[in-house]
Amino acid sequence: MRLIESSITTPKIAELFSDRSILEAMLAFEVGLARAEAGLEVIPLPAARAIEKAASPKLFEENTLAADSLRSATVSIPFVKALTEQVKQIDPTAAGFVHWGATSQDVADTAIILVLQKSRDILEADLTRVDRALSQLSERHAGTVMLGRTLLQAALPTTFGLKVAGWLGAIRRNHARLDAAFEESVILQFGGAAGTLASLGDQGVAVGKALAAELGVGYADAPWHTHRDRLAALMCALGVMAGSLGKMARDISLLSQNEIAEAAEPTAEGRGGSSAMPHKQNPVGCTLALSAAYRVPGLVSTFLSSMVQEHERAIGGWQSEWATISAIVQATSLAATSMAEVAEGLTINAARMRENIDASHGTIFAERATILLAKNLSREAARKIVEQAVKESAGSNRDFVTVLGEMPEVRKVLDPPTLNDLRVPENYLGAAEEFRRTLLNSSAAHERTRDHAERKH
Amino acid sequence: MRLIESSITTPKIAELFSDRSILEAMLAFEVGLARAEAGLEVIPLPAARAIEKAASPKLFEENTLAADSLRSATVSIPFVKALTEQVKQIDPTAAGFVHWGATSQDVADTAIILVLQKSRDILEADLTRVDRALSQLSERHAGTVMLGRTLLQAALPTTFGLKVAGWLGAIRRNHARLDAAFEESVILQFGGAAGTLASLGDQGVAVGKALAAELGVGYADAPWHTHRDRLAALMCALGVMAGSLGKMARDISLLSQNEIAEAAEPTAEGRGGSSAMPHKQNPVGCTLALSAAYRVPGLVSTFLSSMVQEHERAIGGWQSEWATISAIVQATSLAATSMAEVAEGLTINAARMRENIDASHGTIFAERATILLAKNLSREAARKIVEQAVKESAGSNRDFVTVLGEMPEVRKVLDPPTLNDLRVPENYLGAAEEFRRTLLNSSAAHERTRDHAERKH
Amino acid sequence: MRLIESSITTPKIAELFSDRSILEAMLAFEVGLARAEAGLEVIPLPAARAIEKAASPKLFEENTLAADSLRSATVSIPFVKALTEQVKQIDPTAAGFVHWGATSQDVADTAIILVLQKSRDILEADLTRVDRALSQLSERHAGTVMLGRTLLQAALPTTFGLKVAGWLGAIRRNHARLDAAFEESVILQFGGAAGTLASLGDQGVAVGKALAAELGVGYADAPWHTHRDRLAALMCALGVMAGSLGKMARDISLLSQNEIAEAAEPTAEGRGGSSAMPHKQNPVGCTLALSAAYRVPGLVSTFLSSMVQEHERAIGGWQSEWATISAIVQATSLAATSMAEVAEGLTINAARMRENIDASHGTIFAERATILLAKNLSREAARKIVEQAVKESAGSNRDFVTVLGEMPEVRKVLDPPTLNDLRVPENYLGAAEEFRRTLLNSSAAHERTRDHAERKH
Amino acid sequence: MRLIESSITTPKIAELFSDRSILEAMLAFEVGLARAEAGLEVIPLPAARAIEKAASPKLFEENTLAADSLRSATVSIPFVKALTEQVKQIDPTAAGFVHWGATSQDVADTAIILVLQKSRDILEADLTRVDRALSQLSERHAGTVMLGRTLLQAALPTTFGLKVAGWLGAIRRNHARLDAAFEESVILQFGGAAGTLASLGDQGVAVGKALAAELGVGYADAPWHTHRDRLAALMCALGVMAGSLGKMARDISLLSQNEIAEAAEPTAEGRGGSSAMPHKQNPVGCTLALSAAYRVPGLVSTFLSSMVQEHERAIGGWQSEWATISAIVQATSLAATSMAEVAEGLTINAARMRENIDASHGTIFAERATILLAKNLSREAARKIVEQAVKESAGSNRDFVTVLGEMPEVRKVLDPPTLNDLRVPENYLGAAEEFRRTLLNSSAAHERTRDHAERKH
Repeated sequence: MRLIESSITTPKIAELFSDRSILEAMLAFEVGLARAEAGLEVIPLPAARAIEKAASPKLFEENTLAADSLRSATVSIPFVKALTEQVKQIDPTAAGFVHWGATSQDVADTAIILVLQKSRDILEADLTRVDRALSQLSERHAGTVMLGRTLLQAALPTTFGLKVAGWLGAIRRNHARLDAAFEESVILQFGGAAGTLASLGDQGVAVGKALAAELGVGYADAPWHTHRDRLAALMCALGVMAGSLGKMARDISLLSQNEIAEAAEPTAEGRGGSSAMPHKQNPVGCTLALSAAYRVPGLVSTFLSSMVQEHERAIGGWQSEWATISAIVQATSLAATSMAEVAEGLTINAARMRENIDASHGTIFAERATILLAKNLSREAARKIVEQAVKESAGSNRDFVTVLGEMPEVRKVLDPPTLNDLRVPENYLGAAEEFRRTLLNSSAAHERTRDHAERKH
Repeated sequence: MRLIESSITTPKIAELFSDRSILEAMLAFEVGLARAEAGLEVIPLPAARAIEKAASPKLFEENTLAADSLRSATVSIPFVKALTEQVKQIDPTAAGFVHWGATSQDVADTAIILVLQKSRDILEADLTRVDRALSQLSERHAGTVMLGRTLLQAALPTTFGLKVAGWLGAIRRNHARLDAAFEESVILQFGGAAGTLASLGDQGVAVGKALAAELGVGYADAPWHTHRDRLAALMCALGVMAGSLGKMARDISLLSQNEIAEAAEPTAEGRGGSSAMPHKQNPVGCTLALSAAYRVPGLVSTFLSSMVQEHERAIGGWQSEWATISAIVQATSLAATSMAEVAEGLTINAARMRENIDASHGTIFAERATILLAKNLSREAARKIVEQAVKESAGSNRDFVTVLGEMPEVRKVLDPPTLNDLRVPENYLGAAEEFRRTLLNSSAAHERTRDHAERKH
Repeated sequence: MRLIESSITTPKIAELFSDRSILEAMLAFEVGLARAEAGLEVIPLPAARAIEKAASPKLFEENTLAADSLRSATVSIPFVKALTEQVKQIDPTAAGFVHWGATSQDVADTAIILVLQKSRDILEADLTRVDRALSQLSERHAGTVMLGRTLLQAALPTTFGLKVAGWLGAIRRNHARLDAAFEESVILQFGGAAGTLASLGDQGVAVGKALAAELGVGYADAPWHTHRDRLAALMCALGVMAGSLGKMARDISLLSQNEIAEAAEPTAEGRGGSSAMPHKQNPVGCTLALSAAYRVPGLVSTFLSSMVQEHERAIGGWQSEWATISAIVQATSLAATSMAEVAEGLTINAARMRENIDASHGTIFAERATILLAKNLSREAARKIVEQAVKESAGSNRDFVTVLGEMPEVRKVLDPPTLNDLRVPENYLGAAEEFRRTLLNSSAAHERTRDHAERKH
Repeated sequence: MRLIESSITTPKIAELFSDRSILEAMLAFEVGLARAEAGLEVIPLPAARAIEKAASPKLFEENTLAADSLRSATVSIPFVKALTEQVKQIDPTAAGFVHWGATSQDVADTAIILVLQKSRDILEADLTRVDRALSQLSERHAGTVMLGRTLLQAALPTTFGLKVAGWLGAIRRNHARLDAAFEESVILQFGGAAGTLASLGDQGVAVGKALAAELGVGYADAPWHTHRDRLAALMCALGVMAGSLGKMARDISLLSQNEIAEAAEPTAEGRGGSSAMPHKQNPVGCTLALSAAYRVPGLVSTFLSSMVQEHERAIGGWQSEWATISAIVQATSLAATSMAEVAEGLTINAARMRENIDASHGTIFAERATILLAKNLSREAARKIVEQAVKESAGSNRDFVTVLGEMPEVRKVLDPPTLNDLRVPENYLGAAEEFRRTLLNSSAAHERTRDHAERKH
């Protein structure tokens, strides 16, 4: 991680995009290729062994490789050249078999795929944490009433349990989409200079399948050098996930405002402090998730824009994809980690939730009052009465239900117990609990995680 | 269609987003709601009948509704008011039951979902045309050799059949993703003022299910007013599709350049003409598809940015979604229609494809020459010889293979028949045909289309 | 305005992009061209008169023109054809001189420039309203103290006057940038088929200058068919403006939350109501401005993406610009109108502002306490004392300054008057008023508006 | 530079965003602040000296700082803490005066401003190279005729000199906009905890002005923590520049296609090679510039989206700006460097330009023929004749002018010399040279560069 990357990644996910990790992935491709080709007698076995021996990340000057990439618009060319030099020192004959049959984009694309495969596990772990924490939080607060808010204004009562279940439902759906996108994308790129594997004669597909097996990735129906739809779909799945995590962060940060004070992020030594103000406790996790949600849409747009790629290898559309992929994965992963921490340590102030309902002077029950009155009066008459009561209540700062109860036309049709019941938020929750349970019971996430785990072992 | 919308939509898909169509969809929601509620005795049956009677698009002033939407940031409010007025004229009592239990966003979201459902059939039809046309084109040109091009430079031979199969494979994968996204997204929105259906007491879910059945859409696990991930995933699926259609358009437009002349869009009376130049035949279909591919990524980004929605109803993030959804669907649909026309009428000049290979003076066979020489010489020696021959060939404008054949060190290891064979593009195609067949045999698309058709009947 | 366009434009600005307005602009170009050419004896005077006579918007079928645009990827071609038909009916010879020397993009680009020129006045008027209203608001509340808030948490006191001045400063800077961008962009497009005006021989530039004068727009140094930087810069200037208006809307909507209640949008009959909840008063103006701020960045991105245009006329990059330009201008204009209304009618609750300061239990004065203590103690000692007092205050819900005053080590160094003064927000405002006055005195906006007005008369 | 950053930056510009450079900029702020405050007797002089002494980048663990930034969502907090520790080791009393009166965002924003200031010189140098090279190229090819191409199809003749002048004009306009944006943006950020500099009492503005002078940056009218319009305008100016550089790259890459072969990028040892194909010479400079042009629009969109910042410090909108700014500056700078190299070394094949004109069989003169014929016949008759001749010419692959000359109705009105002249491209260039000279004479760029240079000395 660099200073310029502060607040956009985590050490764990950043490590995957480090020089060492990228180099290992590129070397894995070349070693796997040599092994696959040696196995099929396309190249001599000793050559494969020499290549394997030379493939140590330590032997490469990453900084030089990156700078040299400007002379070919891809790092693969200086990388293959450097690897060839290393092999030559071990076995000059073997040097001729480095990268045999492959093209620059084969190694570059497969390397990023290998990194993406690893990123999946990191994301998976954080999303599972979010899932578990939100499930528990929702159960715990199934009956905790709070203000439902629309356009940032008090609307009707709802439960915090349902609110949490809403976040959870979105995360689960996103998780399922992400799984599908990863399954489709984690595949080998191998097509040679123009996507025909011509230099391998009739052994191209056999080499490709063996290489895919070596690397533990899928084998695509054909090279996809300029068909980036699978990667684009994966970037989109990450982008939508970041949006849903951002929505959760927005809600929590709003509930954490001092004047609302219904929720608070976990505190820990050194977390959320201010450089100038000793009293501040900043909602750091939400801040990081929101900052990711701001960044990702433009990055997804960049990836989509670059899909219009020319012929068998693009001019420009492909060459900067790495930076975009890396930024999207890191931002989404940071959002997931941050919200996992927030979800696991969130403090909820249920008493304050009720106080904020009470502070509305009962006007949030106006809809309910209209409905009750409309059972005995026309809806229009009911609406007029309620509007008058709302107005009086707001003007005089008196309780809406009290004001309503003083109106003669209301007294005629609603008895005191009914009026008292009117202001009990628990009695005006409709299907909240039914929705909550349905969201929580969507078992997709657990099964999916299990399947994924099984698939890997 | 309006003038300002020239070149961004087609009359057919534009019609779906017309005032009449939107109004019909909103009325369908209100009528369906009244019926569902009457069926469950939530409102009186005569009220439902009156609402149904009043629900004629002709009775509404769309222009006024749109202008009035600025006073509430949603068109639902003036719409419900206008509908209530219409019902009142038929049955004053019934007027009180209009929109019973629903909120503005319920009708707005469900209306756009109904329109999206219709758009699916239009898109489906065009994608099926593209699929069929490309399948035939690929079969017809299975053996048509052409230049593979990387970074806009001649690379190695490939076949036009494989190139077409590459486009087709991407379209099919996109089609499958789009199917999944539509399946998930075409669902009812129904949550009432704060997403709890409180005003319907314990009948909220029952009314919702009946309403979904009335409208022929799915019933979601819970209201999704501020959880826009399903719609976002659909917008993304459209965005990726637009990218793949754009890639196909890019390729064809490049092949259509006068100096390359390997492909030409279908001509028709009045199609592709220029206002000033009688000789021009513009690639109009590709132009429209490319213009869609330029537009969509930014629109997808807008949708993703707006996902960070507050609490139970967003302030700003939701209110302009209609325009974005409409623009994405129309652009992608225009791209599909345009490329369907192009694919169905594309003229291919196979002779010119071979001429362009020939015009490379054989240098595109340099890789092959290296491999052949490397069988007898070291790879490094082979590479040096070939580089020298390429240089001489380019400098003297003489055929590379001839130049090569004149080099004594080459003559020692390659006999004349081998040298002659070297420049036969058909003999250097590697796995091209194998890849092509695999891509074509991916039967997903046909089954999917069939399943979808069956599902609907 | 259409239903699908609800909440993304205003009737006034939408009118500029209506069929009639676009058609008038295109006709203005053709009439102006004919006049300019007749004046220079390039075409016969009677031909120019016939063209002028035929140029009535009523004679055109906009819907047909838009649909026909799909056959040429630009509406100019069916438009010129239709105009030619109209002229032919008046004077068959004249018909041959329609659009003489011009190309499709000349009329399309110039037409949108003419519309942009008009949009400037509408924007200008709203921005001037915002400017005036904010200036007055800032003066009125120069001394109104309120919480400064960082990361949505109470920070230190500030004044509402400074907050308003901050919004104003940004609007003025944006206004100046917008002026510069309009000045540069409102220019003629006129280059003929390939940007050389070849068909006009040596009179091309003379015709161009006369045409620019006819239309009241600038004359560019050369045709700019594929050089879109000026328009891109204008779209960017609008995009940045939308961002600043969105920031203002975000602040006001946050201040309008029931629990904060420091500000409220103007109310008016029918404004801000809810379809279900009689008590709701939605911040409609902020909602519309925020929704514009969400939309515009992606649209700007689309425009920038499309700048990479081929040779003398683009394939795809140009053809969908109208839709993007129109969307950006309308969204930004809607935001300006909305915030003008909000600024002019904003209700401020200064008492509540102070109550919210008081509700912080004085912890917002912790920084100040540290500084005061650090005059007598080491900074580290001061910080520790204050942290302890903040902790105790938060734990016991007691006033921070009272808690502080009870600590023996504090009593030693701070006397009671100093301690009392500590909690007076007016005494801890630093340079707030100085900053406020500087922002208000930046006279740029007024002079600029005046200059612009003078320039036009 | 890292491997993941291959092809998205240059070593020179990447260095500016390195840990060392960022750290130096942050330290410069703290040292400047201490000096300014000591000068005004706000803090003791020895404290300032100790801070200055401790401010060595070598003493900081950048990796730890970046990782720790996740606990506060800004690197400023761990940075200030680490600096304080360093100062403490030199002078414990001085430690209390580190960062006196400033807030996290003050140091973070000013640091990035200092880096941007340096990036300006790097950009400036490359843009000046582009300017000079294109000016010379345009002069040299003032009379070189080539095909003007619209929608990738042959249109009319133009000159390469004009084409180059078009690129140059756009670069110059962009350069001027960039200058204005830099002038406005290179300003101090200094507002303290809530933008009032409260902790500095009545000396806030004095300290700010002294600090700005120390750092050699402008002093803003007021703190701009959540008013990001100046930076947004700078990001936009870079974005539009990247678009114009991309347009130039697109043109050159199209002209470099083997089948067109009118231009070629400079070759150099190791430049533009392929990992598999010895004959390839890839247009690397254009590839890099195009890849930048693909990336930047989405990044600009991200910056604009993040402008909607809350109150006195944003939650999320600000915290990830560094990454976006850094990416935009590096991409645009890479594009400028790449196109400077391309412009300086571009090889032009004027003979091939004429051959490509000739290969059009004269049909590109159809417009001219129509005009000539229309002098004697009606325009409609002329158009019909020309259309017939175009058709015949295309069908028979015979020269259009020859075919035309054989038509009796043509012979009647056009004599052989006129017909012969018809196919001379030099005679159908209209105002090409006039436009070219106007574009070249726009002296803005040179004056601007000089002014900037003078301003600095």
